[in-house]
Parts: sequence; C-alpha cells; structure tokens
Amino acid sequence: MSATDRACIIGAGCSGFTMAKRLKDHGVAYDCFEMSDNIGGNWYYKNPNGRSSCYQSLHIDTSKWRLAFEDYPVPESWPDFPHHSQIQQYFNDYVDHFQLRDTITFNTSVEAAVRLDSGAWEITLSNGETRQYRWLIVANGHHWDARLPDYPGLESFAGYQTHSHHYLDPFEPYDYRGKRVVVVGAGNSAMDIASELSQRPICEKLFVSMRRGVWVLPKYVNGKPVDKTPMPGWIPRRMLRALARRKIKELTGNPEDYGLPRPDHEPLDAHPSISSEFLTRVGSGDITPKGAIDHIDANGVVFVDGSREDVDAILWATGYQISFPFFSDPALQAPENRFPLFKRMVKPGYENLYFLGLAQAVPTLVNFAEQQSKWIVEAIGGAYSLPTDDSMKQIINTDEKTYLGNFYDTPRHTMQCEFDPYVADLQKDLALGRRRAGKV
Amino acid sequence: MSATDRACIIGAGCSGFTMAKRLKDHGVAYDCFEMSDNIGGNWYYKNPNGRSSCYQSLHIDTSKWRLAFEDYPVPESWPDFPHHSQIQQYFNDYVDHFQLRDTITFNTSVEAAVRLDSGAWEITLSNGETRQYRWLIVANGHHWDARLPDYPGLESFAGYQTHSHHYLDPFEPYDYRGKRVVVVGAGNSAMDIASELSQRPICEKLFVSMRRGVWVLPKYVNGKPVDKTPMPGWIPRRMLRALARRKIKELTGNPEDYGLPRPDHEPLDAHPSISSEFLTRVGSGDITPKGAIDHIDANGVVFVDGSREDVDAILWATGYQISFPFFSDPALQAPENRFPLFKRMVKPGYENLYFLGLAQAVPTLVNFAEQQSKWIVEAIGGAYSLPTDDSMKQIINTDEKTYLGNFYDTPRHTMQCEFDPYVADLQKDLALGRRRAGKV
Repeated sequence: MSATDRACIIGAGCSGFTMAKRLKDHGVAYDCFEMSDNIGGNWYYKNPNGRSSCYQSLHIDTSKWRLAFEDYPVPESWPDFPHHSQIQQYFNDYVDHFQLRDTITFNTSVEAAVRLDSGAWEITLSNGETRQYRWLIVANGHHWDARLPDYPGLESFAGYQTHSHHYLDPFEPYDYRGKRVVVVGAGNSAMDIASELSQRPICEKLFVSMRRGVWVLPKYVNGKPVDKTPMPGWIPRRMLRALARRKIKELTGNPEDYGLPRPDHEPLDAHPSISSEFLTRVGSGDITPKGAIDHIDANGVVFVDGSREDVDAILWATGYQISFPFFSDPALQAPENRFPLFKRMVKPGYENLYFLGLAQAVPTLVNFAEQQSKWIVEAIGGAYSLPTDDSMKQIINTDEKTYLGNFYDTPRHTMQCEFDPYVADLQKDLALGRRRAGKV
Repeated sequence: MSATDRACIIGAGCSGFTMAKRLKDHGVAYDCFEMSDNIGGNWYYKNPNGRSSCYQSLHIDTSKWRLAFEDYPVPESWPDFPHHSQIQQYFNDYVDHFQLRDTITFNTSVEAAVRLDSGAWEITLSNGETRQYRWLIVANGHHWDARLPDYPGLESFAGYQTHSHHYLDPFEPYDYRGKRVVVVGAGNSAMDIASELSQRPICEKLFVSMRRGVWVLPKYVNGKPVDKTPMPGWIPRRMLRALARRKIKELTGNPEDYGLPRPDHEPLDAHPSISSEFLTRVGSGDITPKGAIDHIDANGVVFVDGSREDVDAILWATGYQISFPFFSDPALQAPENRFPLFKRMVKPGYENLYFLGLAQAVPTLVNFAEQQSKWIVEAIGGAYSLPTDDSMKQIINTDEKTYLGNFYDTPRHTMQCEFDPYVADLQKDLALGRRRAGKV
C-alpha cells in the first residue's frame, strides 16, 4: 500500500472514531486528526476545542435502548436517558476497548484539504505539515458553528448575549439569577435551557421567543421512553405518521392550551422538539411565550406584536450552520445549510470524499454514523461501487423527497433522516453497489 | 349582643379570612388574630410567623380552574398552575376587596384557649390580654409543625439537615451546589425539592429515600390540567376509582419502570403525589432512588438494604403534625395526626368550637374552607343545629369509612377528603341541620 493508500478522518467524535474502528477492522491504513486532547467532540463537556455544545444539565434525548453502538453494549446500570458525562464515558470506553486511541492524533487540526489533480487529498495540519490521502472522511460535526440571527438594533444591545452553544449552566459563565432573559428558539436547546433558567430561584423573568409554534414531545409515553416502542415495521409510513400525529395531539393537547403559539404545521412536520418540562413550565407561568422579534434596543426586545420587554440577557438557541472550514472549494460549502449528498455521504463528483454523521437523524445520531461507516468501508475497499454521478443526483432528488418532503422548508430541515428507513435503504444500496462492483 | 356574643378566629390564612368574610356578611361580630404582619399563612413566602412551608419554586398543584373562591374570581391572566406569589396576591386582593383587613388583629397570637364552665372560650393573647368569646374558630393550619423522624445515629450526623418546611431554594439558607444530598419522603414536597436539587448544576448527587413506592401523577393529562376535567358526577364512585386507576397506570407506566420501588398499593390508595418532573428525573439518572433508612452515621446514611451513601445534607420531607399549641385540654390534641371531627369541623362535646380547613382535601383546600365557612356561619347563627354527640360519633365513623377506607393506614392519611363528595354531603347535612333547628 503506497503512502497515499491511506484514509484521513477529520475529527474523533462519535462518527470519527467508529469510522476508525471499521477501517482498523478491515485493515485500511488511516490517520484520524482531532483538534482536542480527547475524543468525544460534542459530548466532551467544556471541550477545549470549543466544539462542544453540551450544557451541564444535558441528557441525550435518545433513550439508551436506541443509541448503543452495535458491537459495544451500553452499561447495564445506565438510566433511560443518560447524562452527557455518561455518554462521553461510554465513548472513551469504546475507544479504549477497541484500542483506537493510539491511532488518533490529538491536538492537531486539519487546516486545509485540497483535492489534487491526481484525485488525492492534500491535507495541511495545524503543525504546518502536509500529507496526501487517497480517501478523505469528514466527521467534523454539525453542532458547533453557532447560527446567529441579525435583528435591527442588535448592535446597540448593552446586555449580555450568548448562543446556546456557549451556555454551560445557570451560574457560569454568566449568573442568570435575578435576571430578565429572553431565550430565542424552539428547538431542543431552547426547550432545555428555557426550562432550566425559568425556574423561580434562577431568572426573575424568562421569555421564550418563537417565530412559529411547535409540537413538543415528552420523553416518556405511558411510562416507556418515547423511542423504545417503535411502531411495527409493516405499517405503511403514511399511516405511521397519521397514528403518531394523533398520539402526539392526544398526549400533549394543543400548544395553544398552554399559551403557546398555535403551530402552522402538523406534528412531525418539523424536527421534533423533546422536553418533559417545557409545557408544564409554560402552563405554570414560569416561562412567558412571545412571538418573533421585530427589533432590539439598548436594554430590551421589541416583538412583532408591538410588545416590548426589558431584558438583561438574550440567549440565542437558534441552531447551527454546516461548516467545513478546511475546504476552500466553493462546491464544498453549505449555504443555508443546504448540502445534498448521495445517501447523506457522497457529493457527486467527489467519489473519494465521504461525509459522516451529517444528518438530523431521528431518533439517534450515535449509531447512525456507525451504520454509515460500514457502507464507507466497503466503498473504500472496493466491495461497493458508486452509481454514476447522474444516477446519484437522481437518487438524491428522490431521497430528499422521501426524507424532507414532510417538513416545512427551513435551514433547520435540510438533513432530516429517519434512522430505520435510512438503514434499510442503505442495505438495499449496498447490495446494488456490490453488484456494480462485480462482487456478487 | 353581649361582649361574649362574638366569635374568635385563630389565624388569617385562606381559611381564617374567608371565615371572616362569612361572619361579616352575616353580621356576626368577630375578632381574627394573626401572629404575622399579613394574611396568607402558608402562602406568605418567608412568612415572619414561621408558619409558611413555601419554597421559592412552589406552584400550587391545584389548577386555577379549581381553586377560586366562589365570590371572587382569579385573574384572567393567571397560568394554569399559579406560583405561590400569585396565590398570595389573590388572597391579599380578596381581603382588600371585601374590606376584611381592618377586622384582623395582626402581630398578635393566641397563646391559650380555655373553655370556661360557662361554655365560653377564654383566650389569652400574646400581649397578655384575655378575652371571652362565645364561639371559637380554629384556622391555624396544619402544614407548619414539621414532623421529624428519629433514626439511630441521627444525633451523630455532622452534616446539614433541615425539614422541607424550612427549605427556600437551592442557595439559601444552605447552598446545595456540589453537595451529596438525601431527600427523605415521597409526598409533594419531596417530589418538588428532589427534582429541583437533583439538577446537574445543583447537587453532585441526589438520593431520594422512600419507605414505600408511590404513584406519581402528572400536572397535565392530554394537555389539560389533571383536575380540570373531572369525571361526570353520575358515575358511581367505585367505578370512578377503577377508571382513574387504569388511566394513571396507562399514563405513567409502573414506577418500577423508572427504577423506583414498586408500590404496595393501588393508585389512589394514597394521597396523590403530583409532579411533572420527578419520574423523568429518575429515568434520567439525576435522582437515585433508595429504600427506607436503617441508621445514620457522622457523614452518611445506611439504608435497610445495607447500602451506605456519603451525604453532606439530609432534607426531611416527612410531613407535618396537626398541632394546637394554644389548647391544654388533652382531648384537643391530635396524637399520630388522628383527630376525628364531625364533618371535619366539630369535635363531639365541643359544640361551639369549629375547626376550619383541617383536611387533606383533593383537589383543593382553598375553597374547601370557604364551603366549610358557609356551614359554620349557619351553625353560629342558629339556622343550623348539630345532631346529638352520639349521632355525631356515628356519622364520623361512617364518614371516615367513606373518606379514609381506601387509603393505607398512616399519619399521612387521617384527614383525606374528596372535595366534590364532601361539599355535596355538606349540603345534605345543612338541610338536616336546618330541620333540626326548626328553620325549615
């Protein structure tokens, strides 16, 4: 194997290191570069690489029954919804168990990645070194580049502001006690952080600003984790959605019953916001719902309904941008988070470049990347051949209709993916690709 | 009306001041003595009289739809489950609206109450004054005299300990951050405080010690406050319980699914513990359930299963004793919280002594006392006559079978009362009493 017959993995989060395991298992030489001093990425609380969005109270909203890697069981003693520290411990145990740690280069980031005319990828590392690789696998995550909205007057705001990405707890790096705060957003971070800060011993007053209503799912249904009892696979997908919609409405009632805005979409037409606390805190008056922001002044926020609230702090829980800082190729950017990929991994025209874990997978991202890594290792080893670029583009269109068609159009919904149908589809595609490769 | 043709009300909590309103409406002269500088009793946060058990995060677990006084609506703007500060504001507004404030003597407690041979009550006030009254109405509350259990070794415990009665918030009067804490109890205070302290930014580790499993009801069912949609009145009570039991089990699943002890009783055989947070915090591993305590040492707790946990603090959420410090008559004490009363108001042999709000009324105590006050004012005014002592004793026995028969036997369950059947029964009893009084 020549010097360039190696793969390069960017990032040692849960996507990167499970990829490393697959490559190791199949005898593919690789380097894995991690900016930080340890693995875990997003799940490494206070990660010195600045890429973790964990806050101290964060529990994963996938139950332990769904998030395990298939070849490494989660601890028996785990609660249903583990804390981030338990996830990170599990990741560290996985990496040590499969002896992957020595194959990862820590404290080293990939500064640039350029495809040469030869087709090889030239990588420039943070230590100035350059190396060439036959395959490049991007696993740099998509929950670290905070998306900050712009509103008139924002530059004049004299209070504290931060993005949920930087939020740690109610006391550090900012003491929210006794403050008037607006949390902007309606996703999981907004639900969690608004619920936490709205408690009477913390904020004096907590507003949550939502541009549109959302359906909020509890973590438990009938005493079982919401993702533990999936519907039987034989029920058609359209009927499944109808059943799930009815169940959600029955369980939580209408958001407007709690004083929230009425959603302009049906349940499951948006990425689910999951919280067992949020609705009760709204219904108890701890959280005061507000609509969209119109503009901001030195010490307050004016909403589109004309109301104005004095606030000491604004917390933007406004999501993330897909970002590849090491690519200069304009085709490898994701404007408005749009980045269509074949099977959410391959961009037509870049057959030796793989994106890993680049999806909003429901219910779980952890073993989503694991499933992708099994496909990638076959593609790298030649057991699987990609279709033609044109064929890939056609399939991308069809897949996006399947996965995104139900969702309203927003930068939040460019990478939706249902785990079970996706994995089943990947199996079918593997069979086709093996036939194309002449391996069947 | 002679000097002693007056009524004395002990306490100006929500029972005392609604009684005052009824007496005022009916032209009965009265004095109302309140230890504190304001009305509200339990709902007056940080009440200088030491009788409030409010903590800063407390929301009433009765929805606003059920707790209003019948002649004074709650504010339209209220959330479903108001904060204690809103309840107290409503109480103050009620007292001002009906111009009751001037009829209450503040900063004055009743130190002694003795029934004279004449039948009149002689009251000694904290200012040394004595007065005589024809009627005595006791509305001193039953959620202020903390019940503290005794365990071997407790005297050697070197950490912090307090009763939930004195708990204010996670920071004052004790900073729980970074501490290992055991909360003892399974009632509403235990659920609330354990949930609050167990949050990862607060305690390092939170144990909850329960002697037996409990069923925990959420605040909302199908998007509606759990008490807002009562079953139709025509369904027999036995069937109602069966339906409600099935619904509770369906809603929450089994406590043991979350890692809690399996209850040794059916739902509704104990005073309901209500929390929308507790089960999820257990299922997320923030709260670690433990069984009963065996003994305590200098810096830890040993449980009956033999396990031992280091703890910095013990919080006793172990309930309250019924206490009448102003009575020296041994018959007017409540050993083990047992204090049977005719219609939960009158002790046979003490026909001019009325106890108000002395019940664990479900779903609400606020207007429970209001309903009682309407009965008491008729008894005082002579429109209603009590049955004979023997007859009262018989009725007490029958009523206790009705109201307490379903509950397991414990000091927690000596005053259970279902609001709707109780009020309906009071109407029937009023009709009988008016006939006895010859007023019909």
